[in-house]
Amino acid sequence: MNAILPPDREESTAERWARFRPIDGAEAYVDSLRGRAVTVYLFGERVAEPVDHPVIRPSINALAATYDLARDEPALATAHSPLIDAPVNRFLHIPTCPEDLVLKNRMQRRLGQLTGTCFQRCAGLDTISVLHSITYDIDEAHGTRYHERYLAFLKEAQRHNVIIGAGMTDPKGDRSRRPHEQDDPDLFLHVTRRTERGLYVTGAKAHMTGGLNSHWICVMPTMNLSEADRDYAVVGLVPGDAPGLTYIYGRQSCDTRALEGGEIDQGNAHYGGQETLVVFDEVFIPWEHVLMDGEYEFAQAMVSRFTAYHRASYVCKTGLGDVMVGAAAAIAEYNGADKASHIRDKLVEMTHLNETIFSSGIASSHEAKPLASGAWINDEMLSNVCKHNVTRFPYEIARFAQDLAGGLMVTLPSEADFKHEEAGPLLAKYLRGRSDIPVETRTRMLRLIENMTLGRNAVGYLTESLHGAGSPQAQRIQILRGMDLPRKKAYAERLAGIDVIATDAGD
Amino acid sequence: MNAILPPDREESTAERWARFRPIDGAEAYVDSLRGRAVTVYLFGERVAEPVDHPVIRPSINALAATYDLARDEPALATAHSPLIDAPVNRFLHIPTCPEDLVLKNRMQRRLGQLTGTCFQRCAGLDTISVLHSITYDIDEAHGTRYHERYLAFLKEAQRHNVIIGAGMTDPKGDRSRRPHEQDDPDLFLHVTRRTERGLYVTGAKAHMTGGLNSHWICVMPTMNLSEADRDYAVVGLVPGDAPGLTYIYGRQSCDTRALEGGEIDQGNAHYGGQETLVVFDEVFIPWEHVLMDGEYEFAQAMVSRFTAYHRASYVCKTGLGDVMVGAAAAIAEYNGADKASHIRDKLVEMTHLNETIFSSGIASSHEAKPLASGAWINDEMLSNVCKHNVTRFPYEIARFAQDLAGGLMVTLPSEADFKHEEAGPLLAKYLRGRSDIPVETRTRMLRLIENMTLGRNAVGYLTESLHGAGSPQAQRIQILRGMDLPRKKAYAERLAGIDVIATDAGD
Amino acid sequence: MNAILPPDREESTAERWARFRPIDGAEAYVDSLRGRAVTVYLFGERVAEPVDHPVIRPSINALAATYDLARDEPALATAHSPLIDAPVNRFLHIPTCPEDLVLKNRMQRRLGQLTGTCFQRCAGLDTISVLHSITYDIDEAHGTRYHERYLAFLKEAQRHNVIIGAGMTDPKGDRSRRPHEQDDPDLFLHVTRRTERGLYVTGAKAHMTGGLNSHWICVMPTMNLSEADRDYAVVGLVPGDAPGLTYIYGRQSCDTRALEGGEIDQGNAHYGGQETLVVFDEVFIPWEHVLMDGEYEFAQAMVSRFTAYHRASYVCKTGLGDVMVGAAAAIAEYNGADKASHIRDKLVEMTHLNETIFSSGIASSHEAKPLASGAWINDEMLSNVCKHNVTRFPYEIARFAQDLAGGLMVTLPSEADFKHEEAGPLLAKYLRGRSDIPVETRTRMLRLIENMTLGRNAVGYLTESLHGAGSPQAQRIQILRGMDLPRKKAYAERLAGIDVIATDAGD
Amino acid sequence: MNAILPPDREESTAERWARFRPIDGAEAYVDSLRGRAVTVYLFGERVAEPVDHPVIRPSINALAATYDLARDEPALATAHSPLIDAPVNRFLHIPTCPEDLVLKNRMQRRLGQLTGTCFQRCAGLDTISVLHSITYDIDEAHGTRYHERYLAFLKEAQRHNVIIGAGMTDPKGDRSRRPHEQDDPDLFLHVTRRTERGLYVTGAKAHMTGGLNSHWICVMPTMNLSEADRDYAVVGLVPGDAPGLTYIYGRQSCDTRALEGGEIDQGNAHYGGQETLVVFDEVFIPWEHVLMDGEYEFAQAMVSRFTAYHRASYVCKTGLGDVMVGAAAAIAEYNGADKASHIRDKLVEMTHLNETIFSSGIASSHEAKPLASGAWINDEMLSNVCKHNVTRFPYEIARFAQDLAGGLMVTLPSEADFKHEEAGPLLAKYLRGRSDIPVETRTRMLRLIENMTLGRNAVGYLTESLHGAGSPQAQRIQILRGMDLPRKKAYAERLAGIDVIATDAGD
Repeated sequence: MNAILPPDREESTAERWARFRPIDGAEAYVDSLRGRAVTVYLFGERVAEPVDHPVIRPSINALAATYDLARDEPALATAHSPLIDAPVNRFLHIPTCPEDLVLKNRMQRRLGQLTGTCFQRCAGLDTISVLHSITYDIDEAHGTRYHERYLAFLKEAQRHNVIIGAGMTDPKGDRSRRPHEQDDPDLFLHVTRRTERGLYVTGAKAHMTGGLNSHWICVMPTMNLSEADRDYAVVGLVPGDAPGLTYIYGRQSCDTRALEGGEIDQGNAHYGGQETLVVFDEVFIPWEHVLMDGEYEFAQAMVSRFTAYHRASYVCKTGLGDVMVGAAAAIAEYNGADKASHIRDKLVEMTHLNETIFSSGIASSHEAKPLASGAWINDEMLSNVCKHNVTRFPYEIARFAQDLAGGLMVTLPSEADFKHEEAGPLLAKYLRGRSDIPVETRTRMLRLIENMTLGRNAVGYLTESLHGAGSPQAQRIQILRGMDLPRKKAYAERLAGIDVIATDAGD
Repeated sequence: MNAILPPDREESTAERWARFRPIDGAEAYVDSLRGRAVTVYLFGERVAEPVDHPVIRPSINALAATYDLARDEPALATAHSPLIDAPVNRFLHIPTCPEDLVLKNRMQRRLGQLTGTCFQRCAGLDTISVLHSITYDIDEAHGTRYHERYLAFLKEAQRHNVIIGAGMTDPKGDRSRRPHEQDDPDLFLHVTRRTERGLYVTGAKAHMTGGLNSHWICVMPTMNLSEADRDYAVVGLVPGDAPGLTYIYGRQSCDTRALEGGEIDQGNAHYGGQETLVVFDEVFIPWEHVLMDGEYEFAQAMVSRFTAYHRASYVCKTGLGDVMVGAAAAIAEYNGADKASHIRDKLVEMTHLNETIFSSGIASSHEAKPLASGAWINDEMLSNVCKHNVTRFPYEIARFAQDLAGGLMVTLPSEADFKHEEAGPLLAKYLRGRSDIPVETRTRMLRLIENMTLGRNAVGYLTESLHGAGSPQAQRIQILRGMDLPRKKAYAERLAGIDVIATDAGD
Repeated sequence: MNAILPPDREESTAERWARFRPIDGAEAYVDSLRGRAVTVYLFGERVAEPVDHPVIRPSINALAATYDLARDEPALATAHSPLIDAPVNRFLHIPTCPEDLVLKNRMQRRLGQLTGTCFQRCAGLDTISVLHSITYDIDEAHGTRYHERYLAFLKEAQRHNVIIGAGMTDPKGDRSRRPHEQDDPDLFLHVTRRTERGLYVTGAKAHMTGGLNSHWICVMPTMNLSEADRDYAVVGLVPGDAPGLTYIYGRQSCDTRALEGGEIDQGNAHYGGQETLVVFDEVFIPWEHVLMDGEYEFAQAMVSRFTAYHRASYVCKTGLGDVMVGAAAAIAEYNGADKASHIRDKLVEMTHLNETIFSSGIASSHEAKPLASGAWINDEMLSNVCKHNVTRFPYEIARFAQDLAGGLMVTLPSEADFKHEEAGPLLAKYLRGRSDIPVETRTRMLRLIENMTLGRNAVGYLTESLHGAGSPQAQRIQILRGMDLPRKKAYAERLAGIDVIATDAGD
Repeated sequence: MNAILPPDREESTAERWARFRPIDGAEAYVDSLRGRAVTVYLFGERVAEPVDHPVIRPSINALAATYDLARDEPALATAHSPLIDAPVNRFLHIPTCPEDLVLKNRMQRRLGQLTGTCFQRCAGLDTISVLHSITYDIDEAHGTRYHERYLAFLKEAQRHNVIIGAGMTDPKGDRSRRPHEQDDPDLFLHVTRRTERGLYVTGAKAHMTGGLNSHWICVMPTMNLSEADRDYAVVGLVPGDAPGLTYIYGRQSCDTRALEGGEIDQGNAHYGGQETLVVFDEVFIPWEHVLMDGEYEFAQAMVSRFTAYHRASYVCKTGLGDVMVGAAAAIAEYNGADKASHIRDKLVEMTHLNETIFSSGIASSHEAKPLASGAWINDEMLSNVCKHNVTRFPYEIARFAQDLAGGLMVTLPSEADFKHEEAGPLLAKYLRGRSDIPVETRTRMLRLIENMTLGRNAVGYLTESLHGAGSPQAQRIQILRGMDLPRKKAYAERLAGIDVIATDAGD
């Protein structure tokens, strides 16, 4: 286990920021991750330099695309920050009007189109968005000064153009017990010690999207807390290379294809997602980077507002959906089947489902409401409706894509066979479709569809769509809470002539 | 057949408007429909005074609710008209920003909640909305002065606070033939004669929602037209009591329950929809009320823009959906079953589907675009997506409502039996559910659900949801046109390493 | 209330049967219902002769079709009864092999095709089927002689070729209370008195399908019972005209169209369903017609076996589904749209759904199991699966039918307007579609689709499909009980290498 | 290319059979595949001994399970063959009554439960089943003696207890061209030469399930043929190790996990499917093993009957569905969530869908019809309905399984990390759920669900369910052909009073 830091090792915020140089683009971003000496395990080995690992690199590329987009489409992917009076990457911009949220959604869809995977930066944005109002509200209630600290951190984050990751999901252990009731207190991340300069936390954050690719991790509670869980009510900012952190990389379907040498069988060789288990062993956080410490009664609001933001962020999947529609249309064309009415009809259905998701996400942004702090937040009902559609429609879209792909998608030999001197020519001869489409082109498109429906990015397109930002039942609970049955029953009773009209039938 | 009007009977626009007094509320609206001497057939008889007919009156009440709402919730149901510099009913207001369309949607949902039926005024609004830009565009192309005429008419309409009905759907006859190819030229409404003062039209408009309840009918083409169809390319305004008009009333499921004396079995005794076949026999339109005459090439744009507006108007069905959710929740409660997890789950699903419709409608309004005339129009893709969801989800919601209602909904004896001296007490004894809920209350709620899923307002909630503003396939065709496959294929090809990345794989 | 019968009025079984003459066909069946002096209320009036009532007659015709089919297709609709060594109507034949159940299903589908409605005779067959084994099992447990009585009754029923109705569903009152806990003891039918010659029952049976059209009503418990409910554990046979019975007729959507004079607007003028509330006021049953009296512990088995039979009987809806497919195909043809690929595709989908229902019903019959009494019973899992599909697919099929019908289905004027001297020619002119299809033909088909999706037979095709033989949740509970998770978990654990393979990994 | 065999190398059927020893069980089966010197490519290398290849072996194990089952459950997995008057593996038994097909379905479901994958033997059984009637019918038409040859082969196959693979799907090239119109004649397998002793074929068979694991491959046409395609109308039997054959192995999602050393991450380490491309280069077939040569007009019947058999064979997926239900129930239990009502409800839905598939498959077998040859064949409509449900429901079931699994399924670190001395204890600490369930147990179950929904056996459970035995549209075409609209339209017209009743309205 990690030795406790000696007091003189307890870093100040200035020392922490001193380790970062402002990032001016994708290349600088990739460089910024090098040489961090983080502890990372993958496939049973400690990874010396994650940036160069073939399995990890595509996930870094996906994040790098957020820098490229800020350069290439600044109207979409940057915003003017009043905090530092300068343009910042939109992933570091607090929404203060519906348009901010709408543009965020458009940017998310665009990045989905560009990467075909999870680009891992939304949860961080949604975290800083929710902390704007939560720190404000705690201060209002308790006279604390979290919001000031928050703004100070955010300004630096904007100046340095860093990636912030969201450390939210605790392992949870026995789900029938509250945090303080667990056999092992570490099953929820908690404060172990407080010193003059800061506090220490121990625990873990599971399913941490892009954890290893982030400069900062914001830890925060994963559920509502009671008074007895006070030490679990902690929000704080931790550099990704802080002492005491260990990353264990989550494997994904077909991940090792990246180790095989070729690129075709990967389907999408350039981009991938990343999920990590991040273990915190007595990790120090200076007070200036602590944004909640014991105000357990705000945990529920934090989670609820976070999901209002984050469930609308799943509109990103419509960008992946655009890729699916495009891939299905392309393979139908390569197969010479694109004129068939049932093929066109399936493409229409895929589009209809994809745009339905988009509409519920974008509507929740357009219908945003202001909070006391000045930040704006997505309409909660529509945001939940968006995410709930995301738990369903990508699966249907994926099935249609597989339908249009044809069975060859899962019976294709490996790239190496295509390149083999004896097998290759046979494949070239027999796997030819339309004579004007190279066999490799058809193969690549099939592998992309495999990638997104069974392979590495199926994790992002399907399973993450199901469970990210809360599993389907979590949305149903929120819809249940928000559906206001008394009001609707009153409509029905009035029309049925019960009470109101019964006593008022003269009109 | 109608005799041709003698020239001295060819009314001027001033004469026409002189027949109307400004309408200041629901009561005045109902009065305005009295004594019009229109020719109306219903159940094989000519109806002397439609306003007092028990079957027709509920449809008038539904329209009257649009006046009440303007009084009760002016922020929602009125708007400031720059044309007359005064507040007008929102159903007479041309949208000139997304917010106008958004508020229109909210008003539509509200009216759905208040009436539980089709309140018949949306198509008219969408007609005047589309004519703003179409008249403008024709003038730009042809140097005509339709837009000026249009504005003049609209000002009067706003001042008089009238109902405008949309006369769009021609009978169409043999669907494989164009208008001018039909055996009977009248199967599409067309110009038969032009005089110094105006023109004459003959034909019919089918499925005309609220036709009989409108002060003015705007006739317009129902589909794209060719040069040979030039006489069919006519847009004009006709008073609802113009000589030459005949209305034949469409019957609806359970319509005659309104004739039975009681109100319970009607389910929703106060409100209903209305569909009429309106026959035009040499109906005169003065030039000042002609807004298209021969510019056939604009027919397609007119239809396409009209559907962009009108398909989003189907967000009204979410108001009816709110009533369905409320009715289902109420009956579950009356049955003592509202705590069961499967009941709650079905209410959540109904809400989720209903809000999904809402989100696609409201999103298409938030994402509106401006046209050259200054009017704004719904995003076409999302508007089609909205309507396409409307062709599906109300049927599912209705099924859930019937599920929660229980079988009693379709085995309930008649209201007269409940009141019968011998049968009544038996029913009171045996149809009791929870002891604190009167049998009549339960009966009324069951009849409301029957009304909306099988009865009179099922026409509006279900079948009209399917076919109004175009049957499902019409939306699929629009989605097909708008789905931009080349762009999406390019996304997929890029990610699959085809072309772009193939030659650029070094990064 | 009904005076208690004087002891000398307590009929013997012989006296009861003496009132019946063997029925040799549909005509004799209709005659057998005449002059029975039953107490029937409909629309607030006592009906003098139900057979001649225009609303009631179509429901009698539907039952009469079961006699016609026995004449026209005896291989399908009759069976050899070993009890009387003669052919009997299959609706009176106890299944003693899977083939009996399969032929029953085929007959049910056929009658659905012929009547387009609920022909009301299945529940009676399923009742006598279940009583075969239940009386046998009670006798085995208690040494009673119910089975002998049962067989004696059944022989007479077969000889007289009568209709037996199932009186199962009690009103139930407050659903959170058991029968003996209700405020009003009559909310479940129960024994009030026992005499030397028989017993008396009081209560009511709700939703009784074809109640008024039956010669005999078999009363039986509707749910599992406890010892305290002993007096509610009664099964007995009651002639439809027994003293003390009152029928209150359930109204249906559009029922009064049968009173309007024409036949077109009825859609299906000849056939309809029937649901009645039957009130029992001290109704006498002689001991020889009592088949359970106090053996409360068999109530659950009775209900469970009844549903195993009856849920498969809902395969009848595939006959109605065939009519829907046919109607949709016909109207598409009349509209000139039958060649469109999306139309054909919808017909395929309707057929696919309909045949899926059929397959689950017929499979449950083919997979039948024998009971101790010698009767065979449907596979319970598949029977529930059949019914559960019936709660869903007819709604989808109906939606497709409405889709193909077009909006005219709900905007058509009344039959009387078509016949009106002025309105009629206008309708003939303007509602013409393909020139070779008479307007009346098109109208009739639209009215049939309305009838089955919104009108009178929508009750049978839709709502009864949802709630008959148990609402959806009832099937889910049975599926839950039968799904045998331990066995399936063992499959998964073995494949996952948990336990079994973990210790056996050498191979 | 393969040199043409010298005439003295043209084997006789006796020489061919002499290479096989009767197989008495799973072990002998595996041994029979050793040392065959077949040409196999996988991952760009020629595989020396496929039996020992870690990726290939699980697919052999799955086939071996068919031998084990014959030993363990002979009533299910064997049948008495009248041809050799001895019990044979049911996979070699020609169905001559519905019960044969029903037992086949039960066996298929059982093997699905036991292997959780495609056990690759159904297509071969369906091939010999269809050839029984096709050879018979050709003989009847042409006076040939194919049926005699067929029976002779089948007897030997039964005596030797061999695996027969179905070589059906040609590569097809440009799908808009018929076989003889292709640029490359080999894109459909065809006869290149005929000698005194037999004929030679060249071409390829794609997606050949279990190709490499079969002792014999039966080549046959993949679609209807015209006279000009006469040389493509060939059916013949080829030993799996015949000169001129080359196998190129299809890769599957996550296939290389079998190379990693552990077994946990494979999910189902013991069983897998297999798809191969089999290239035929001048492969000789002696006349006695030729069962069609030029009778092109029978190609369509062959395909159509084959699909009638084979589409019902997809009932095997209900066995995999049982595993999915079990796995979902198990993981819910391990997570401590199995009592939640929404969890139970999802398990019910999964079961309902799975049993719906089963019912349509088993129904098509129960409803089988006899052919002239004496073989029986599945009901074609229901068989297509079965397969069409298989193209949908497994995807829904898989989604539910992922839902119940939770997100951990796709963020789990690798087996090697669990075993790592530093990472392992951290994972043991933090991935604990219920304290009585070992972390490895939970991990294994999650990996099984991943295996079946994203990994290797997702190919068999999902994509093969979509495309095997014909893609969805192929079933829709068959349903279209079989749905008999004229009959159904007549039902509707009769009820609507069109024609029949119109002239017969007196009753």
